[in-house]
Amino acid sequence: MEGKRVLVVGGGAAGMATASRAKRLNKKLNVTVAEASGWVSFAFCGLPYYVGCVVKRLDDLVQITAEEFRSKRGIDVRLHTRVLRLDASGRTAVLEGPNGEEELSWDVLVLATGARSRAPKIWPELREAGNAFYIKHLDTGEEIRRHALSLREGSRAVVVGSGYVGLEMVENLVELGLRVTLVEALPQVAPRALDPDLAEKLETYLREKGVEVIKGAPVKGFKLDGGKVKSVETDAGDIEADMFVVGLGIEPNTDLARQLGLELGPTGAIRVDERMRTSLENVYAVGDAVETRNLVTGKPAWMPFAQVANKMGYVAGTNIGGGKAVFPGAVGTSTFKVFDMVVARTGLSKQEAEKEGFNPIEASLEGGSRAHYIPGRKRIHLKLVADGDTGRLLGAQALGETESVLWRINVVAGLLTTGGTVWDLFFTDVGYAPPLNPVWDPLIVGARLLMRSLGEEPRKA
Amino acid sequence: MEGKRVLVVGGGAAGMATASRAKRLNKKLNVTVAEASGWVSFAFCGLPYYVGCVVKRLDDLVQITAEEFRSKRGIDVRLHTRVLRLDASGRTAVLEGPNGEEELSWDVLVLATGARSRAPKIWPELREAGNAFYIKHLDTGEEIRRHALSLREGSRAVVVGSGYVGLEMVENLVELGLRVTLVEALPQVAPRALDPDLAEKLETYLREKGVEVIKGAPVKGFKLDGGKVKSVETDAGDIEADMFVVGLGIEPNTDLARQLGLELGPTGAIRVDERMRTSLENVYAVGDAVETRNLVTGKPAWMPFAQVANKMGYVAGTNIGGGKAVFPGAVGTSTFKVFDMVVARTGLSKQEAEKEGFNPIEASLEGGSRAHYIPGRKRIHLKLVADGDTGRLLGAQALGETESVLWRINVVAGLLTTGGTVWDLFFTDVGYAPPLNPVWDPLIVGARLLMRSLGEEPRKA
Repeated sequence: MEGKRVLVVGGGAAGMATASRAKRLNKKLNVTVAEASGWVSFAFCGLPYYVGCVVKRLDDLVQITAEEFRSKRGIDVRLHTRVLRLDASGRTAVLEGPNGEEELSWDVLVLATGARSRAPKIWPELREAGNAFYIKHLDTGEEIRRHALSLREGSRAVVVGSGYVGLEMVENLVELGLRVTLVEALPQVAPRALDPDLAEKLETYLREKGVEVIKGAPVKGFKLDGGKVKSVETDAGDIEADMFVVGLGIEPNTDLARQLGLELGPTGAIRVDERMRTSLENVYAVGDAVETRNLVTGKPAWMPFAQVANKMGYVAGTNIGGGKAVFPGAVGTSTFKVFDMVVARTGLSKQEAEKEGFNPIEASLEGGSRAHYIPGRKRIHLKLVADGDTGRLLGAQALGETESVLWRINVVAGLLTTGGTVWDLFFTDVGYAPPLNPVWDPLIVGARLLMRSLGEEPRKA
Repeated sequence: MEGKRVLVVGGGAAGMATASRAKRLNKKLNVTVAEASGWVSFAFCGLPYYVGCVVKRLDDLVQITAEEFRSKRGIDVRLHTRVLRLDASGRTAVLEGPNGEEELSWDVLVLATGARSRAPKIWPELREAGNAFYIKHLDTGEEIRRHALSLREGSRAVVVGSGYVGLEMVENLVELGLRVTLVEALPQVAPRALDPDLAEKLETYLREKGVEVIKGAPVKGFKLDGGKVKSVETDAGDIEADMFVVGLGIEPNTDLARQLGLELGPTGAIRVDERMRTSLENVYAVGDAVETRNLVTGKPAWMPFAQVANKMGYVAGTNIGGGKAVFPGAVGTSTFKVFDMVVARTGLSKQEAEKEGFNPIEASLEGGSRAHYIPGRKRIHLKLVADGDTGRLLGAQALGETESVLWRINVVAGLLTTGGTVWDLFFTDVGYAPPLNPVWDPLIVGARLLMRSLGEEPRKA
């Protein structure tokens, strides 16, 4: 592939990981990245913290600048450049950048077009209002913060959607002195992360932090007054506020993929093989726009998470650069922190496992983060799910006011990756020290509870 | 086994776990525990925190009291009761308790005799001095604290031995206002936990905390003056202080095992099979007195850690109670916290792996505990070791001022338990959120570094 031209569409995590890895392996590649915004390698996940002024400048969210990609990594990064058209047979692209349109030929194309927010498509009027914003678009981070800071302390903000970005936004708006109401369509908060019983504990915590929580309230529309949004209309009534932040989830951005005629998978995201190749030769796709495999179910899954996107980029870049790598899939680990509460999950819930045809058993328990005699012990709520027939681990959920919650879930994630069992988890030799965990760690106690249903002696596969 | 009598010698973690589990499975068992001290289920690991007054009362270190074991679990706990003689052929024991000697018959015997400190055997005069103490004996916790509190602030204390208990003792004596000198025989601190280069970072940290560190100074003896210890004699000269705390490591307490003629293993601890049975029928052994298998090397290993002891007790108790369970072994995970620094390790170091006949490769890196733009980010030093021929993970070490250090090591421990590879670790889907970890977690970066030596594509076994 010496001297070949690689065109990467999208300069987010996955796109830049692909570009960097390919160029690193094969210095002779001509790698161009076309990015519609003014940023590459931008940490979208940090946006709520920019709103809350934890992060001072938007630039702080950039780990490597476009200029550094150019000068240090030899990658031709083009900012403010959109891809208007792609032609797979002629291998060309028409870009529109600051200097107008340009046609570019490519040998290898990488779609890293990411995901986009659903809200503006549903309610285009929000774009005009000035006091209503949707999450997950870069420039609006700046607008949300400016608007929130322009309001008097104690002004009211509504956040629609209690996914992780919504909850992080709630925290940051509270930290700016606003009174926040969280509106969720479903009858529980954090529906993608937690079972209803654990979600209730999170909700109680949010209320203790002064957040008003309104559940079972799908948003029907917005009432405007003098061009500004005055209230959000929900099944649970209208809710007035001074500003509105709407997160209705995201969807894969497959516009260019459709234009090229790429196969999409059952999840609606771009179908790729283990080497991150699409259905068209020499066209790769990575990141939030593609579908991968859930290693627990073996089925296609859309997992728009930054750590997955980065690994996909590493794998695609390795293959483009002349190496060989496969991306086996992921297990759906996600986590967030809201105030001091950490929530994490991996794999399947019991309900999901049932739907997938497993015969799941579950252990649900409460444990402590440290030895009982060490001050600062936090409560941890943990659920473990395993297959009742084989003892294979299927998933876990946890919450508690300690970052170790995520890491307990990560231990399970590691075992899910390798098809580990309940017995593997019980006998995982987790280190112990009184200020760090109890000698019977909640994770091991959970495994013990599952073992009691399955029998202490490991079953042979 | 209905109505049979089970005699457990030793009421520590392993002994009480065995007793509780056996009785829980089979209520008809007559379970007696003979404990030489006045405590059962006592958290020895908490002793340094008792010294530092983090834990107020010794009672706080007991999770379940002897009285609760009797009344709630139906276990006949005998405190202040030593086992003088054991007869395996007649299945009897002679106990000496508060009411004198008593002969007891047993059907099943469990040795949970634990480990003991080496120091008093070497220097019996320390017992008399009044200002010199050895670690890892329960009653001396009280003495150390009383003595430390009787000294004026700024008085000097010497701690001999930089294992985890020694280091925890250092922290707690500093918190009591003493000026502490740490004396280590080997040329590095924490020699069992860390490679020399990582140990150096720990040493720098200790010095920043005001601890004087003297390495390469094996202790030759003590100088007494008026019955009190005045200084410790080392190869690096005499070191004077007002009090001395000596931890020279521990050894398995196998006195009764030898009396019974039980087979010991190559490590000097009691040999048991996977069901925790010794070489004599109906005699089990658990906890710090026994040898287990290192799951990484497949060889016998002595792993005197509380979490291992508890699991051994659970397994032995299950088998005694009529169930079936096996203890497969452990991977040698250990951890400690000193001030805010957390140190953890699992499996083998590169040097150990070489000795074991592997062809190890190593990744050594520095990473951050959070996204670069979130305040409070801590530095993490991490080493990963893998087999260069197969890609199998062999071990890891880490330190940093965050409890997540332990949990990163625990993720590796989980993979070591299941024979996971470098590729398994790279593709372990660890959750990501900016306040909790960087999107390229140090753990995944470490796996990536190893993958670069091995090739990105997993090798077939």
